Amino acid sequence: MSKPKVLLVLYEGGAHAKQEPRMLGCLENELGIRELVESKGYELVTTANKDPIGLSEVDKHLPEVEVIITTPFFPAYITKERIDKAPNLKLCVTAGVGSDHVDLDAANSKNITVAEVTGSNVVSVAEHVILTILNLVRNIIPSHEQAVSGGWDIAGCAKNEFDLEGKVVATVGAGRIGYRVLERMIPFNPSKLLYYDYQELPAAATERLNKASEIFNDRGDIVQHYSDLNEMLAQADVVTINCPLHEKTKGLFNKETISHMKDGAWLVNTARGAICVAQDVADAVESGKLKGYGGDVWYPQPAPEDHPWRSFRNKYGGGNAMTPHISGTSLDAQARYAAGTKAILKSYFDKTFDYRKEDLIVIDGDYATKAYGQRK
Amino acid sequence: MSKPKVLLVLYEGGAHAKQEPRMLGCLENELGIRELVESKGYELVTTANKDPIGLSEVDKHLPEVEVIITTPFFPAYITKERIDKAPNLKLCVTAGVGSDHVDLDAANSKNITVAEVTGSNVVSVAEHVILTILNLVRNIIPSHEQAVSGGWDIAGCAKNEFDLEGKVVATVGAGRIGYRVLERMIPFNPSKLLYYDYQELPAAATERLNKASEIFNDRGDIVQHYSDLNEMLAQADVVTINCPLHEKTKGLFNKETISHMKDGAWLVNTARGAICVAQDVADAVESGKLKGYGGDVWYPQPAPEDHPWRSFRNKYGGGNAMTPHISGTSLDAQARYAAGTKAILKSYFDKTFDYRKEDLIVIDGDYATKAYGQRK
Repeated sequence: MSKPKVLLVLYEGGAHAKQEPRMLGCLENELGIRELVESKGYELVTTANKDPIGLSEVDKHLPEVEVIITTPFFPAYITKERIDKAPNLKLCVTAGVGSDHVDLDAANSKNITVAEVTGSNVVSVAEHVILTILNLVRNIIPSHEQAVSGGWDIAGCAKNEFDLEGKVVATVGAGRIGYRVLERMIPFNPSKLLYYDYQELPAAATERLNKASEIFNDRGDIVQHYSDLNEMLAQADVVTINCPLHEKTKGLFNKETISHMKDGAWLVNTARGAICVAQDVADAVESGKLKGYGGDVWYPQPAPEDHPWRSFRNKYGGGNAMTPHISGTSLDAQARYAAGTKAILKSYFDKTFDYRKEDLIVIDGDYATKAYGQRK
Repeated sequence: MSKPKVLLVLYEGGAHAKQEPRMLGCLENELGIRELVESKGYELVTTANKDPIGLSEVDKHLPEVEVIITTPFFPAYITKERIDKAPNLKLCVTAGVGSDHVDLDAANSKNITVAEVTGSNVVSVAEHVILTILNLVRNIIPSHEQAVSGGWDIAGCAKNEFDLEGKVVATVGAGRIGYRVLERMIPFNPSKLLYYDYQELPAAATERLNKASEIFNDRGDIVQHYSDLNEMLAQADVVTINCPLHEKTKGLFNKETISHMKDGAWLVNTARGAICVAQDVADAVESGKLKGYGGDVWYPQPAPEDHPWRSFRNKYGGGNAMTPHISGTSLDAQARYAAGTKAILKSYFDKTFDYRKEDLIVIDGDYATKAYGQRK
């Protein structure tokens, strides 16, 4: 009888994997789980061959797979179609944060548990948000290009360079990442910090930010909750998106939504690419409605070579602060999400099922979190 | 009789000046001071022709000049040779912060006042420091280049990507800029913040940082003073230079100093280019001693096309986060240093001489600040 399978889908490391053994999150280094998986009597299949759906290596193993592990950086999309072909599938683990690549309703209907490593890279992403905002507001990328290409045209850089201090910064979502963005913003002395979320922050969390602002900026009362997105957008110089992707946030930033933003605002998205309508965002920068857009999430991933976010620029040739989806996969984050994945697998293999509550997305046929919004 | 002259040296704006009228700090927009200068009976000469010393437009006007205004971004170097040719020179104003382009000893010997617009761009520079650190630690620039050139090699980015959280961050100098860097670092939860300075921070300033760290990081005692530079360097993952350029800091970061740094550290310099020995820094990144170097100051400025800081890279093709000297010349900063320059000129023209004390570098034949270290 063949062993039950654990299917692990990771991006290829190639030569990089040998150069940097701390890079646990790549195909070659397998999150360091092989020994654990095999010691529990399972077969570990690791692959980067995930597309196209129906024809990939992933699809080939679906009939015998009991556990699928994938990452947000290089996700195997676990669609209803794939779930239907995996009768033994019991557990989907996201090595990282954000499980929108799994059809959660389909998982519920088949009693599949979906878990992620909450907190493993929220700090990494929050850091990426702050740096993307600074790169856009301070017009850094065109300036760097000038420096390394032999130029010295200060005016050409400065004409689109601003300070973050004194700006109104708004986050869509004030969860684990959004709140960390607010924290890191305080000493930059923004004129105001706004957040839009389905519920207000706990009073203690707001007070904490205001108290820090008193220390740094000699004024409290810096944080303000909005329950109307468009009202908030109309006030903000910088908007950062920090909410999960689900049916209500898919395409949330489209031409109409962007029209409510201030002229010349900056938009940053490190949440999920599909929260924005790609062409609408590119058009908004090209037309001057937005000064710039940046982030590290795309749809689909890997992004095709002709994805509009690779090529848009503002009228001055800048305003594009895109990277591939890397914010949550720093070497520090990889160590954390590899360890978290191991812990989830142990609980599963040993049948203790003592998962960390905050890691669970769906379990026992129902949602374990409100974050994904689906309630059908 | 010809009018006394005010000589204003600014970078050219060209087409950029028309596109962005808020860009006060360029040749065409003259800091908005023409009306003031002419109303006081002076002739305003504005030029970007400052080199070579002895043959430039600046040199031509020295015999009649009473006031020289220049910026750190595009400095007219006011050497002893030039001061000797300017018998009527009474006031040198730096539109910005940092007056090392003036031979301060020579200014003292001729009773020339040197003033700058303290505080006008310290926030701008501190923001640039934070973003440069984040760009280096998180390996952003090669990742952005990948995004816009059609690539998707997550492993190639991630193998040299880290989190700022948990790192030891050290500043050389904890003055107006260095202290602001420490402030902005606190919520990033570094394991420790170190500073090297000739004097300890006032107790209240240290306490302020520790108190904020208690709020954000659940621990105070985050800040530590070092009076020995090499001892501090040996502890730091990230070193940021925030001290003035003077005889004791010129060439301070050379091969020997860098040898005291941790292997694989990052170095950021937004203070003055000449504080570092350019080739030694480039060699340190190329050899892998440093993971990267970044900043926006060079020597001389404009930097020649073959300046080593344009071309150095680490073994992975990254580690260069240079920009031209732009950090202090954001449009927000330009508004502030234009206003500050006007205020200094008014005090001078009206003979009230009620300069802001903190703006004065040398006056009445002596140093008004300890920051420049010169005491002959």
